[in-house]
Amino acid sequence: MTKLGKLYGLGMGPGDPELLTLKAHYILTTVPVIAYPTSENGQSLARAIAADFIRSEQIEIPISLPFNVQKSSQPYYDKAAKKIAQYLEFGQDVAVLCEGEPMLYGSFMYIFQRLSAQFPTEVVPGISSIMASAAMLNVPMTYRNDVLSIIPATLDELKLRDRLVVADAVVIIKLGRHFTKIRNILDELGLLHRALYIERATQTDQRIVSITEVEPTEVPYWSLILIPSKFNY
Amino acid sequence: MTKLGKLYGLGMGPGDPELLTLKAHYILTTVPVIAYPTSENGQSLARAIAADFIRSEQIEIPISLPFNVQKSSQPYYDKAAKKIAQYLEFGQDVAVLCEGEPMLYGSFMYIFQRLSAQFPTEVVPGISSIMASAAMLNVPMTYRNDVLSIIPATLDELKLRDRLVVADAVVIIKLGRHFTKIRNILDELGLLHRALYIERATQTDQRIVSITEVEPTEVPYWSLILIPSKFNY
Repeated sequence: MTKLGKLYGLGMGPGDPELLTLKAHYILTTVPVIAYPTSENGQSLARAIAADFIRSEQIEIPISLPFNVQKSSQPYYDKAAKKIAQYLEFGQDVAVLCEGEPMLYGSFMYIFQRLSAQFPTEVVPGISSIMASAAMLNVPMTYRNDVLSIIPATLDELKLRDRLVVADAVVIIKLGRHFTKIRNILDELGLLHRALYIERATQTDQRIVSITEVEPTEVPYWSLILIPSKFNY
Repeated sequence: MTKLGKLYGLGMGPGDPELLTLKAHYILTTVPVIAYPTSENGQSLARAIAADFIRSEQIEIPISLPFNVQKSSQPYYDKAAKKIAQYLEFGQDVAVLCEGEPMLYGSFMYIFQRLSAQFPTEVVPGISSIMASAAMLNVPMTYRNDVLSIIPATLDELKLRDRLVVADAVVIIKLGRHFTKIRNILDELGLLHRALYIERATQTDQRIVSITEVEPTEVPYWSLILIPSKFNY
């Protein structure tokens, strides 16, 4: 029987290819097969981060995911996991490229759930955009006894208010079409003057603007609001 | 007038030198001066992570910090900042090595506060042990709408209970001598069966044991408890 291949979940970091770890870089450049999530229109941030390091002889498996967020992505992961498993069964290692940190809201987790019981699996941590945003905004995030809350903007208003009112430091993620709701809650809670906004942290088109100047209809998914520790003030 | 040197805050990652980013590795190996926190007995995790990459011609500035946590470290940072400033004024770049992510409970923040207004400053994000622990424990941390709370064990029991009772996923940091208090609260809240324990994530002496087997008097500062998303169950 052939020795099974190894499944890697590679944290690709937030966007700047220089923020890849030495370990992820080594695995990325030596593994025979790579896989990465792409939207149905073929765009893949994970592949874009890796682009300069991918060699033409590497086999690529795009994991196509539905553009429509209402549509379940689970059947898409079923299909991708089956494809990846074929290579692993033949003894070939497969690295699944994942934006940011694979275990933190990562698409890799759905591949991990499907394959990690059958195949040797290793997750290589990456820098999350959530963490990188503080460095890009040039502001310390948490001191000493501060609690840091990472809160998806997709929650309902009641839960958002409950979490924000007791928070020391906060990163609000998955902003997109929820921006106006979030801005209004922050205003109401007296937090708006502490809120910093960043789009596509560390990517080539990173953008930092005052939160009061953000156009709510043009907020991308890869944007976030950071409320740093009050000990900065 | 001499051009001022640049101050770098370099995220060194959680412990494994291979988890340094390409960017941090490049700056670490090309900068003329490095500084790093050390305890009064001369131990420095940040320097240990960098050890294999440091060249003998690089100038080293140890930032000595008090072993006694009751003692204020602020005068120590004053002294270190003055020393670092001397090199920056002479046009030499200085990289301050920082375990994990510099802007997240990082010692670099105290140097940043003292020098970033006078000198060009760049923070290079690093992988936090908080984030790397999920990969080492082989468990997804947060899905979809989960809120992730990062909670220092140093908080009082009332505040700890308040934060934990509403939490989706949690990382409890700075455990050390607070382990028993935390274990009791988790037990009381019915969270103990979901709690995973890890010491020195990604370091050569990393240790993972069941939380019920942890000897409370032997819990190091570099240990944490991860309560992953309930969607893993």
